[in-house]
Amino acid sequence: MGTEPAPSITICGLTYEEYASAVRAFHGHLAPGMVLGGLLVDLAYRHRPPGELLDVVCETRTCLPDAVQLLTPCTLGNGGLHLVDLGRFALTLFAKDTGAGVRVAVEAGALGPWPEIAAFLFKQAPKHAQDTAALLAALLQAGDDILRVEPVEVDLARLASRRRAAFAVCPRCGEGYPEADGEACLGCRGEAPYTVGGAGSVENG
Amino acid sequence: MGTEPAPSITICGLTYEEYASAVRAFHGHLAPGMVLGGLLVDLAYRHRPPGELLDVVCETRTCLPDAVQLLTPCTLGNGGLHLVDLGRFALTLFAKDTGAGVRVAVEAGALGPWPEIAAFLFKQAPKHAQDTAALLAALLQAGDDILRVEPVEVDLARLASRRRAAFAVCPRCGEGYPEADGEACLGCRGEAPYTVGGAGSVENG
Repeated sequence: MGTEPAPSITICGLTYEEYASAVRAFHGHLAPGMVLGGLLVDLAYRHRPPGELLDVVCETRTCLPDAVQLLTPCTLGNGGLHLVDLGRFALTLFAKDTGAGVRVAVEAGALGPWPEIAAFLFKQAPKHAQDTAALLAALLQAGDDILRVEPVEVDLARLASRRRAAFAVCPRCGEGYPEADGEACLGCRGEAPYTVGGAGSVENG
Repeated sequence: MGTEPAPSITICGLTYEEYASAVRAFHGHLAPGMVLGGLLVDLAYRHRPPGELLDVVCETRTCLPDAVQLLTPCTLGNGGLHLVDLGRFALTLFAKDTGAGVRVAVEAGALGPWPEIAAFLFKQAPKHAQDTAALLAALLQAGDDILRVEPVEVDLARLASRRRAAFAVCPRCGEGYPEADGEACLGCRGEAPYTVGGAGSVENG
C-alpha cells in the first residue's frame, strides 16, 4: 500500500486527475468520500447495458450525491437523483422505465486489509489525525475489492411524488405550496428551520 | 411582454447565456425553474455582505437545488445545501456561523401581471401547452418584482445531523450505518425502496 494514486485508474471515462479537478470545482475539495463515490458510480455503470435512461437512488447525504451529480445526468433538481437517506454509503443505478438496476455498496467485511479506509468510514479517528494522501491511495488501490454489487428491482411507485399534482396559495404566507400538504403549507405549520425577522439581516437592496 | 430574454440581466455575475449554458450542462435542459432559481439566488446574494461563509436552505426539490449548486459553493454532498422540502419555491442564504440570513421566495400575490408565470408555478396548464420561450422572457422581465425578501434567523441546531457521530456494522446487511438508527440499519428495516435480487439486472462485471 504505497501513497501514490494508481495512475491507470479511470472513473466513468475520466482520468483520476480529470475527476479530481471536477470534484474540486464542484464539491470544493478532493474529499476521500468523493473518490470512493466515484468508484461506486463507475462500478455501477459497468453493470448496466449502455444507452439506458437511468436514475439513481443514493442512500447517504455525504459526498456520494455529488459524485452522482458529476458523473451521471442525474441531479437533485432535475429529479434523476433520489436521495433516500438510509445512512449507508451505497447507490442504485436503475432504468427509469422498469426499475431494474444495480446496487453498489461498501462491503464492511472486505475492509480488513484496508485499516485507513475502515477508520475513515467508521470515524474511528478524529478527522485531523487522518492521513488523507494515504487514504486516497488506499481507496484507489482497493477499488472494486471493497465494493458489493447486487441486482435490485426499484419500486418506482415508492419514489414517485404525488404531492406536487396541484398547487394552491397558502392562506398564511401567501406563497404557492402543494395542496396535498393540507390547509396551509408545511412552512407555516412549524416545519421551517428558521424564524422570520432577524435584526439587521437585510443589508441592502 | 416580448419573447426575447432581457439582454442586460446577469445572474450571480454570469450573463444570461453563460448561466443558460451552465444549466444545460448540469441540469440537462434550460428549465424555466432553473431561470427562476437563478433569479432567487442572485437576489439573495445581493442581500448579504460579501465574503461571508454561507449555507443554503432550499425548500423545494424541483430545479432550485440545482441553481444553488451551480451558483454557490453549496452542494448536497458537501453539506452546504440543506434540503428541507416544504414544497415552496424559496431559499434561505445564511451565515454558517450565526444563522443570520435572508430568505427569498416567490410572492404569489405579485403574479397578476404575469399569467404565464402563474400558470407555470401553479401547474394550471399541461406542460406540453406551455410556451417556454414566452415563459422564460416573462421570468427575466419580471425579475425581482415577483420575489419576496425577508430577513431570517436559521436554527442551526435544527439543521445539524447528530445521527452520524458513530457508525457500526449492520448485523443484517454487513454494511456500515449510523449507530443511532438502531440495532439494524434503516435499509434492513423496510426503508429501502427496492428489493434485492431482480433477475438479469447484472449484465457483466
